[in-house]
Amino acid sequence: MSDPALSTVDEYLPLHAADLADRLQRLETGEARSILKQLPPEKSAATLVELEEERLPDLAGAFTPAELAQLLRRVGAADSADLLQRLPPATRRDVLAALPPDAAHDVRGLLKYPEETAGGIMSLRFITLRDDMNVEQARALLGAHAQQERIEDVSYIYVTDAGQRLVGIVPLRDLIFRRGDRRVSEIMHRDVKFALVSDDQEALARKFEHYHYLGLPVLDEGGRILGVVKAVDALEIARKEATEDMQLMVGLSGEERALTPWRMSVGRRLPWLMVNLATAFVAALTIGLFESTIAQWTALVVFLPIIAGQGGNAGMQTLTIVIRDLALGEIAPGDGRRALLKESILGLINGLAVGVVVGAIGWLWKGSVVLGVVAAAAMVMNQLAAAVAGVLIPLGLRALRMDPALASSIFLTTVTDVAGFFFFLGLAAAALRWYGA
Amino acid sequence: MSDPALSTVDEYLPLHAADLADRLQRLETGEARSILKQLPPEKSAATLVELEEERLPDLAGAFTPAELAQLLRRVGAADSADLLQRLPPATRRDVLAALPPDAAHDVRGLLKYPEETAGGIMSLRFITLRDDMNVEQARALLGAHAQQERIEDVSYIYVTDAGQRLVGIVPLRDLIFRRGDRRVSEIMHRDVKFALVSDDQEALARKFEHYHYLGLPVLDEGGRILGVVKAVDALEIARKEATEDMQLMVGLSGEERALTPWRMSVGRRLPWLMVNLATAFVAALTIGLFESTIAQWTALVVFLPIIAGQGGNAGMQTLTIVIRDLALGEIAPGDGRRALLKESILGLINGLAVGVVVGAIGWLWKGSVVLGVVAAAAMVMNQLAAAVAGVLIPLGLRALRMDPALASSIFLTTVTDVAGFFFFLGLAAAALRWYGA
Repeated sequence: MSDPALSTVDEYLPLHAADLADRLQRLETGEARSILKQLPPEKSAATLVELEEERLPDLAGAFTPAELAQLLRRVGAADSADLLQRLPPATRRDVLAALPPDAAHDVRGLLKYPEETAGGIMSLRFITLRDDMNVEQARALLGAHAQQERIEDVSYIYVTDAGQRLVGIVPLRDLIFRRGDRRVSEIMHRDVKFALVSDDQEALARKFEHYHYLGLPVLDEGGRILGVVKAVDALEIARKEATEDMQLMVGLSGEERALTPWRMSVGRRLPWLMVNLATAFVAALTIGLFESTIAQWTALVVFLPIIAGQGGNAGMQTLTIVIRDLALGEIAPGDGRRALLKESILGLINGLAVGVVVGAIGWLWKGSVVLGVVAAAAMVMNQLAAAVAGVLIPLGLRALRMDPALASSIFLTTVTDVAGFFFFLGLAAAALRWYGA
Repeated sequence: MSDPALSTVDEYLPLHAADLADRLQRLETGEARSILKQLPPEKSAATLVELEEERLPDLAGAFTPAELAQLLRRVGAADSADLLQRLPPATRRDVLAALPPDAAHDVRGLLKYPEETAGGIMSLRFITLRDDMNVEQARALLGAHAQQERIEDVSYIYVTDAGQRLVGIVPLRDLIFRRGDRRVSEIMHRDVKFALVSDDQEALARKFEHYHYLGLPVLDEGGRILGVVKAVDALEIARKEATEDMQLMVGLSGEERALTPWRMSVGRRLPWLMVNLATAFVAALTIGLFESTIAQWTALVVFLPIIAGQGGNAGMQTLTIVIRDLALGEIAPGDGRRALLKESILGLINGLAVGVVVGAIGWLWKGSVVLGVVAAAAMVMNQLAAAVAGVLIPLGLRALRMDPALASSIFLTTVTDVAGFFFFLGLAAAALRWYGA
């Protein structure tokens, strides 16, 4: 009770590293660092691994490079590489220099693969056997490996030839319960699915989800096994990507959370708000074209948010579905045209349904049949425009090799605002000329 | 070549069941059924498991209940239960009656758990040992189990007492390489994490993601083990939920895809478009309150989409982040207030930045300082309203025990439209009265 810092550490001690990281991230840097330093090394190491990218460099400052190297010996090479990647280059170099040569070699090997590839997310915790061993020898080798705490998951064991090339896979179960004099090459499965070290991690995540793999070996161009990607890691990427899509659509960069400090949030959101402002001016200019029409017929104004808002909502429905399908890899080449056709039919039908209601209200509220017809027609046209934009914006972004979700809702509402105002006010101006209001 | 149906089957034969399901779902019912019937039983069974919920009942019609029962013997009890759950009750009853008694018992057991709970997603493919066995006996039992193809993953083996209560867990590795005369109770880990059979699947998915579990045993209230939830299954739920959030936000119910037949899509989207229409009328009525102001000062109209659009975009940024954090379970009680404060600060700062630009443009474009000031002030106020609505709408929906994402973007844009129009036109009307335009 007399030492507040100590009593705090006691309170953190029983927590899981993931919870500890959550709690530390909410503290001021000084306090968080002091707790990290007082934790037992296993716990500090595990907590560092769990910290978010944006807070890690700051909190890792609690330790000298030599201390960090000591901590990293308690986590695997893959976690070490992930962690070092997020530290400043100078720190990274010093930590690598302080690691034992074999560990440093493994970590350096992993650091050379781009973060977004199979190589960037693979683990080095796997076991290989030679195909010319017999089952008895394989069991002995496995027994030796089992002493190392580093190897967690041995459900599948990889079989290589003399050149380290992957030639098969053996479930641990088979290895345990087959006769000892049989050759590994006789009991192994030869049809092994694999990933290439350069495969994109998002494509890989989709593969895991689609085929329900539990893990995949990662090979280099020569067919040599370099590592293993586990389903949990791949699926966490898929999940992260799905929430990122939600954020990208509305113009948010990076992993932002509700409690991210507001100083960081301003820099992330304001640029997109400025982009949105620029596009909003295009909509404003469209209205500006018809200022004289509006001056003659003020009743038009109340319909502007209805026409634009309905287009925006319908377009967002289409956009969300197309982005989701693209993310899940469910849109094959040629499907774009089919999706466009389907969404256009849907836009037409929904447009007619909504248009009739809007037209009727326009007529009853403002007492003008012409206004009702103009509103209904503009609604149908804008729903169609929304459907087309909802399909073409994400497909276009992808064709430009950008993320299909990127700021797509901003582009979409620009289209639905501009098109909606143009159709509605343009028809109204024509009606004014031909029939009078 | 003479029989087109046969040549088609040859083409489908080498495909993975997941790909087969994708392809069949795009065919007409008759053709898809004919291919399903011609596939080898293992492949038909695996393909049925992969079919989407909406097409399954239709395509399963290829088989009689007795044939379906034959096919289900090739998949596990969990997959059988999932599949039967989606078939009409009469078919389900007939298939269960045609299953062998032990299989029917397992499946019936699973069917009684609600689909959204741990019980609804658990697998029965696990192995238990008694704590009073020795390691030698345990190995013999495991050897017997290993003959059954049904048990795929034996990385962890569960240890129960005489009353089937879970008391520990043993990694397969330990069981293989420890001395045969040691007792299971001596080598097991006693600190076992678990899920309760009634646990909500989404909460469970968050737990898997947070703690990186590979699997969790599922217990009943008495601590007896009923099944096992695997990380891959839990994470697929998390992923599905994330994409569902995207869809719910814009008013889409159910799992809709870009190529879902348009007849189904109309029924799903039109109701929400009508909800949006109702809310858009509220915005229209707000403008209607100021028709005489607009009649006097038409230049105001071009600013309406700018004020409303900026509010909508900023509000969507806030909303997306809050919904994401709620989905990931990262908003603890009490955090709502902190998030509200942070977002308000952000709304104020971003509002000032955007407001200054809009004000300047208003002044330069329309040559009226008053208009510039009014636009800038309304922008600041609407950005603040957007921030507050972005936090309170999802938290409010949750408090009402609804999904925080449900149609939230529709509610949000209603707030930002109504507030934006009211602030802007209200300030303009006041300015008109005091200063003239």
